[in-house]
Amino acid sequence: MSLGATATERVVLFPEGDPLRLASGRTLAPVEVAFQTYGTLSPQADNAVFVCHALTGDAHAAGTTPDGRVGWWDNLIGPGKPVDTDRFFVISPNLLGGCQGTTGPASTDPATGRPYGLDFPLIQMTDFVTVHRSLMHHLGVRRLAAAVGGSLGGMQVVQWMAETPEEVANAVVVAASSRLSAQNIAFTAVAREAIMRDPDFADGRYLESDRRPDIGLMIARMMAHITYLSDQALTDKFDRRLQHGATPALGFDVDFQVESYLRHQGESFLDRFDALSYLYLTRVMDYYDPFADPAAVGRIAEAGTQALVVSFDSDWRFSTAHSRRIVRTLEHGRVPVSFREISSPAGHDSFLLTPPGYHETVRAFLDRAYDERGARAA
Amino acid sequence: MSLGATATERVVLFPEGDPLRLASGRTLAPVEVAFQTYGTLSPQADNAVFVCHALTGDAHAAGTTPDGRVGWWDNLIGPGKPVDTDRFFVISPNLLGGCQGTTGPASTDPATGRPYGLDFPLIQMTDFVTVHRSLMHHLGVRRLAAAVGGSLGGMQVVQWMAETPEEVANAVVVAASSRLSAQNIAFTAVAREAIMRDPDFADGRYLESDRRPDIGLMIARMMAHITYLSDQALTDKFDRRLQHGATPALGFDVDFQVESYLRHQGESFLDRFDALSYLYLTRVMDYYDPFADPAAVGRIAEAGTQALVVSFDSDWRFSTAHSRRIVRTLEHGRVPVSFREISSPAGHDSFLLTPPGYHETVRAFLDRAYDERGARAA
Repeated sequence: MSLGATATERVVLFPEGDPLRLASGRTLAPVEVAFQTYGTLSPQADNAVFVCHALTGDAHAAGTTPDGRVGWWDNLIGPGKPVDTDRFFVISPNLLGGCQGTTGPASTDPATGRPYGLDFPLIQMTDFVTVHRSLMHHLGVRRLAAAVGGSLGGMQVVQWMAETPEEVANAVVVAASSRLSAQNIAFTAVAREAIMRDPDFADGRYLESDRRPDIGLMIARMMAHITYLSDQALTDKFDRRLQHGATPALGFDVDFQVESYLRHQGESFLDRFDALSYLYLTRVMDYYDPFADPAAVGRIAEAGTQALVVSFDSDWRFSTAHSRRIVRTLEHGRVPVSFREISSPAGHDSFLLTPPGYHETVRAFLDRAYDERGARAA
Repeated sequence: MSLGATATERVVLFPEGDPLRLASGRTLAPVEVAFQTYGTLSPQADNAVFVCHALTGDAHAAGTTPDGRVGWWDNLIGPGKPVDTDRFFVISPNLLGGCQGTTGPASTDPATGRPYGLDFPLIQMTDFVTVHRSLMHHLGVRRLAAAVGGSLGGMQVVQWMAETPEEVANAVVVAASSRLSAQNIAFTAVAREAIMRDPDFADGRYLESDRRPDIGLMIARMMAHITYLSDQALTDKFDRRLQHGATPALGFDVDFQVESYLRHQGESFLDRFDALSYLYLTRVMDYYDPFADPAAVGRIAEAGTQALVVSFDSDWRFSTAHSRRIVRTLEHGRVPVSFREISSPAGHDSFLLTPPGYHETVRAFLDRAYDERGARAA
């Protein structure tokens, strides 16, 4: 069963008179947030599940848009699904700094009447959580039955736990990290170089012209896409097969199927994503370090938050070692945490798929969360 | 002991009247080859070792140039070293299609008087071997005591074995492959997109202007460089350390040390490499498939060539699985082959370093090759 048609709403959470105060000390207003909700909030407001999206996701996590686009996590969220909308009230926003309805660097700067561009303030993971919390409160929720996220989404969940764990009864952290490695940073650094050195980037002022840093953004996406899949997944999907017949064209045009696939991934990305958002959202990950504050884990333990951490054995972008680090940190602080490494050939993108054991594990964790909803840890 | 000063020589191996016949059917002339030699050829001409360089290498494998630059494999080649120049006569050319002395796409096309650009014919691994063989013959050698190469260099060695194994008594194949994976092709495909979509690439005619596709080539190199190192090597080297002090700058400028390192790798590459050569040499690897001819292994077995295959456990660009495939193929054809996976944290670049057991293994193999020099298999 699927949710059927779903629609995106928008709300100004931080108007000009009451701006968003960022961790950097800067303020931002207005901040409008695009979001979707599924299911019904209980009278006790104790059945809310907050879904945090990954780098290029959007508010449309489940159901189908009027033009037929299926939500990016529709296999997980819906009636009878692991995030069961017959029981949970699900909240799914677009991220601050994004480009799919929520205020970001492509939005209009009220001080100038022009798009922010690089005048948009640098944001940090905690700023995502500040906006998420505001949306949650706006919707009448004070405490989440669960926060759920994969990849960058999982990082937001960890940040939320680390800051105000009393608001997060249960946390589902999939294919995420609490601390990017040098290799992780290296990949995003090259992506940003590709974008910012594209002559059409124009110091971030391209929105005021009819040109876009499409080449840079496309290269960034193609490279990132390789890291989202495992070596084996690419072999299974394409191996060395050619686009046309068995005879290689022996030239520089697209010849291998994997080349065609990557080019398509790069080109189609241009229709749905903004280069400035790519800069801002990747940089958030580089600086992210939620357990730098040693008191964070103690707060989580005290609040009674329970965590589920899931990794995939073929994920080399945020490998099981990243998840194990989160688990170790929580365990050392006596936070109840379940950990499961799922076997899946698909690499990092497994979090969007249904390898055996993955959804079953999330379902069991959330079933318990539902049964225990409203209960507070002693 | 080191070789001291070494110098690069040049020779026209294929003059206009006797052009190089490429596998594609096209011809190329003149073909000039830059090379270095170390040590002395024996009167029997039975002590020659041919060194094949990797993607961005050059003829200067060992010793020191007059301006103080040390050869890229100086730790392996020299008096008393594993490739012992007191005993072996070592030949080290720059590749066809390269940009460091040997004819390539930046050379002048005699038909037009302009640089070839993309009019340079597409080359294949077998064309490298044709030129190598010609250089060998020019130097008075009919049969090599050994051919030695790492990465793309190792692929040339496998190609040579597969074609004319009677000329290669021993083959040392380090961190190489006999067949690129979809992921391997994907990485080179993105690199080529970055170069060819750079507006300054000008359809390959940039050499006739004062501009170069520097951004594309820099991005290609930065991305490739990540794949040459292991995740662990990058962590050991940089972890999350900042360029300046302990407080992050929280911006898009270089802030983490790994960013600064990568940018330096990308920028300094522009001084020594040409974007067209990058296109041509990477494409050679994509199409490479030396055992597509099922008779190749039988020829190697008959010729009595002995092989040493070496991989490194942290190499994820050309992992041990690639080397095992070569070993399996040779073993099935009853070719005598030794295989060693070396433990090294440095990733693919280990082939340029000295992790324990690596040079010892090469030395033992080449010591035996020296003792057996001149002997022909029955």
